[in-house]
Amino acid sequence: MKISIAQINPILGDFEYNLNLIKMNIKKAQQESTDLLVFPECSLFGYHPMDLLGRKSIVREQINYIYKIEKIIPSNLCVIIGAITMNNNKCGKKYFNSAIVLRSRKPSKLFHKELLPAYDVFDEARHIEPGDLSKNIIKINDKKALITICEDIWGWTDSAGESYYSKNPLKKIKPKQVDLIINLSGSPFTLKKEKQRLRVTQETVKYFKAPMVYANLVGAQDEMIFDGSSLFLDKNGKIIHKLNQFKEDFQSVVLTTEMKAVSKKVPSKKNNIEKLRGALCLGIQDFATKTNLKSVHLGLSGGVDSALVAALAVDALGPEAVTALALPSKFNSSQSLKFAKAQSKNMNIKLHQLDINHIYHSIIKEIESQFGNIPFGLMHENAQARVRGSLLMAYSNLNHSLLLNTSNKSELTVGYSTLYGDLCGGLCPIGDLTKNLVYKMAQIYQEKYSWIPNGVITRPPSAELRPNQKDTDSLPSYDKLDPLVLSLIENKTTKKTTENTRILKMMMMSEFKRWQAPPILKVSSHAFGRGRRFPIAHRAIY
Amino acid sequence: MKISIAQINPILGDFEYNLNLIKMNIKKAQQESTDLLVFPECSLFGYHPMDLLGRKSIVREQINYIYKIEKIIPSNLCVIIGAITMNNNKCGKKYFNSAIVLRSRKPSKLFHKELLPAYDVFDEARHIEPGDLSKNIIKINDKKALITICEDIWGWTDSAGESYYSKNPLKKIKPKQVDLIINLSGSPFTLKKEKQRLRVTQETVKYFKAPMVYANLVGAQDEMIFDGSSLFLDKNGKIIHKLNQFKEDFQSVVLTTEMKAVSKKVPSKKNNIEKLRGALCLGIQDFATKTNLKSVHLGLSGGVDSALVAALAVDALGPEAVTALALPSKFNSSQSLKFAKAQSKNMNIKLHQLDINHIYHSIIKEIESQFGNIPFGLMHENAQARVRGSLLMAYSNLNHSLLLNTSNKSELTVGYSTLYGDLCGGLCPIGDLTKNLVYKMAQIYQEKYSWIPNGVITRPPSAELRPNQKDTDSLPSYDKLDPLVLSLIENKTTKKTTENTRILKMMMMSEFKRWQAPPILKVSSHAFGRGRRFPIAHRAIY
Repeated sequence: MKISIAQINPILGDFEYNLNLIKMNIKKAQQESTDLLVFPECSLFGYHPMDLLGRKSIVREQINYIYKIEKIIPSNLCVIIGAITMNNNKCGKKYFNSAIVLRSRKPSKLFHKELLPAYDVFDEARHIEPGDLSKNIIKINDKKALITICEDIWGWTDSAGESYYSKNPLKKIKPKQVDLIINLSGSPFTLKKEKQRLRVTQETVKYFKAPMVYANLVGAQDEMIFDGSSLFLDKNGKIIHKLNQFKEDFQSVVLTTEMKAVSKKVPSKKNNIEKLRGALCLGIQDFATKTNLKSVHLGLSGGVDSALVAALAVDALGPEAVTALALPSKFNSSQSLKFAKAQSKNMNIKLHQLDINHIYHSIIKEIESQFGNIPFGLMHENAQARVRGSLLMAYSNLNHSLLLNTSNKSELTVGYSTLYGDLCGGLCPIGDLTKNLVYKMAQIYQEKYSWIPNGVITRPPSAELRPNQKDTDSLPSYDKLDPLVLSLIENKTTKKTTENTRILKMMMMSEFKRWQAPPILKVSSHAFGRGRRFPIAHRAIY
Repeated sequence: MKISIAQINPILGDFEYNLNLIKMNIKKAQQESTDLLVFPECSLFGYHPMDLLGRKSIVREQINYIYKIEKIIPSNLCVIIGAITMNNNKCGKKYFNSAIVLRSRKPSKLFHKELLPAYDVFDEARHIEPGDLSKNIIKINDKKALITICEDIWGWTDSAGESYYSKNPLKKIKPKQVDLIINLSGSPFTLKKEKQRLRVTQETVKYFKAPMVYANLVGAQDEMIFDGSSLFLDKNGKIIHKLNQFKEDFQSVVLTTEMKAVSKKVPSKKNNIEKLRGALCLGIQDFATKTNLKSVHLGLSGGVDSALVAALAVDALGPEAVTALALPSKFNSSQSLKFAKAQSKNMNIKLHQLDINHIYHSIIKEIESQFGNIPFGLMHENAQARVRGSLLMAYSNLNHSLLLNTSNKSELTVGYSTLYGDLCGGLCPIGDLTKNLVYKMAQIYQEKYSWIPNGVITRPPSAELRPNQKDTDSLPSYDKLDPLVLSLIENKTTKKTTENTRILKMMMMSEFKRWQAPPILKVSSHAFGRGRRFPIAHRAIY
């Protein structure tokens, strides 16, 4: 029995585009004499649909496309595809998150997801009725296949015996009922995710003593980056084949008593920084493509954050699609502009230089004409950042170009940013990277590509909004701040020290800024954005 | 048996403040010889905690306060209070959403919420493990009381036999097991909510043939406005007493074979516009109070939206706390400034006038110096709005004042607003009102208070960002648009016409703006904000 995974990158709600992707992969499977072809979760709808499911007309349209797929299934090929289907009961949520088993001249069979994630970016219980895994077994060729969808295999307890779920629905099924485990996933990337996936797939394989096909989506959707990395595991939990990370792919195994990979090519191993690079480039690329924005731009300050975003943008979209704007003020060191110019030249991107001084002065003058002389302070700093924001957005208006925001996670945590100033943008590519990770990634673009001037990396970080400003004037050094950011945001615990409490308070008190931040590409287990739901008006500083 | 409801307004995470509220109400109950005192859902923690529950230290601190309450329970008084409690199982979510029954010299008893809402603004399943309602019966005096929490009573089918839930957990309990139904709620206001609450409380009463105590929170929390309106219903479903809407309150009934109200005072009936006024004033007041911002300001344009927001702000906080800024450009009619001045005078609030023309021109000049002459267009319109945004935010910085945003729901739906321009603000009070509702509310402040000049209401709506601009240049009239907004956003269905599809597309394509909008006070069943989760990068225009 030959089994293939079609690791595709669908576009949310573009059923015609997704149908074509599916068609091409079915044709390929037919050419390669595949017996069973598995697509990822929601591959017809695109993932994740969120409240698009609130509009019945959208789901109805997607269901029309299921009928179109049914008509193109060749004989001798079994296709399993993820889609949204109707719950026809009057009670319960309106839809199921389903796997559809399609075979020519046989009626299609539906199998529903049972475990619905309600953490991080996921809210599936809003629109999806849970299924019952004990009904999800179907004979394919001579194999009793268990059909699971994503979260269904995540109910195992961890090494401490703990689990987010009070019950593991897989345990309703006896191991001997199953010869082959199939999982359709829409599992987003984080640096730790591959290890976590291996744990749950291996736990599942171990329990059933059966081989497993794990088909994961690839592609980005707003904040979320689905990395692919689909897997075939044999009945001992050994990885027989792994599909590309961050790219569409099609791979097959032959399953007899053993499982064997058809191709010997395996994706090259990547270190964490290379993985982050792959993830963020895919995130930028897909956001631009899927919103029909062909070009991007950003303010290139001469600092490391914007240097990295510029490099990622060029890496993702090519230099023609990227424009830099240098927006120096009288507080910027002369180096800053020099670095911005050098980097633009290195990367072969356009650089426009706009002067913010006279605009800034006309704002201050107008304010002082009404409110009298005001000593230099926060208002003056923010005013500069907001002039830059206005100019960058004017460029968006003129060129239908996507403004990339350059905030990092360390700044975002403590609210070290100006709302409507440097928080402007349509997408924030590095908002889930601590400052130290920003430096590490920038080093790659300095060392391997010579895009980023070395001075950008070695100079002390500064917002350059007042004379001789350094980030360390008001923040701990990033070597101290970053571990604290991780413990505050990701582990959610902190030792009670004066310094920690100060940073915790800065985090809590700046929630109003993050509420209005652009979508942030998520690469950690706890990113700012839709997956983090904090109130603004509260007094819980513990 | 005398039963009292303490309808309180706790502050999220301020356990000391909430403890004091609870203490005062216990003292009052003692003075009035109450036998049973019921507080709303989560009244110790404040509601709704969202991802604050992700930090164990916060919950641990709240649990310390439960012990403090246990110590102050007087003899002969049974107190039921809503709080977060620990789930000590290794598997499942970490907490329960509980009602604690406290009696002196008896151990406290915990009862947990079973039905966890996963729609609109609610995500309780993120952190809360469901309880089992069949265990929620306790004898209080001689009554077998069923303890339920908010959503627990919302599982009934509607007139079409439909329900969001596949099972109604109340049906696990036999009517004869119950003499008295208690519900602790944190149910947010919408115009339709009182009617819906009456339906589910009466269904519950009808099923158990038992009287009911329905204790709801009052107070606002970011977008959500809890309106109170707690209820006592007798065993026939008749309302015996209703507590104040939008105010703290304490009321009692005596329950023998019949239920009788102690006080004869009932809250005065309000029409929809008066209810909206109460809701929005509470929303503004609590956001300001709970974030420690003592004053608010806004751009007063001479149009109806900002006129209404100014009136609501003065109504909520008094004239001393409100400052208006007039920011006319050369495109504003002379009337606009005249109206802004007249309204400020009528309401006795400060008005500052700032000129945006020279700032705007310095921006355009700088852009043209780099990109050449640009014919007047969207960029010029947005640039004006962003200069205003910058000046209004500068005022925030100078005076630690909360900028009120003045967008309405009709504009927000079609994206007729400038990101970082008129979308600036810390709170958007009228973002859930269609333009027609804005007019209706403004009329109250014109007719009853003479705050808003009549001309503001009668002039045709215009953004005044280019010569002789009218909203109808690019939008249908609001009489046509508003019903469409309601059908698109609240009912989520629309007839397929060219015009409807154009508006639907405008809505879908402007999601990136709403993603970055300030918190919007929610008064309808489907407001923009955290309760609506739409993707940006998608192509589902159906």
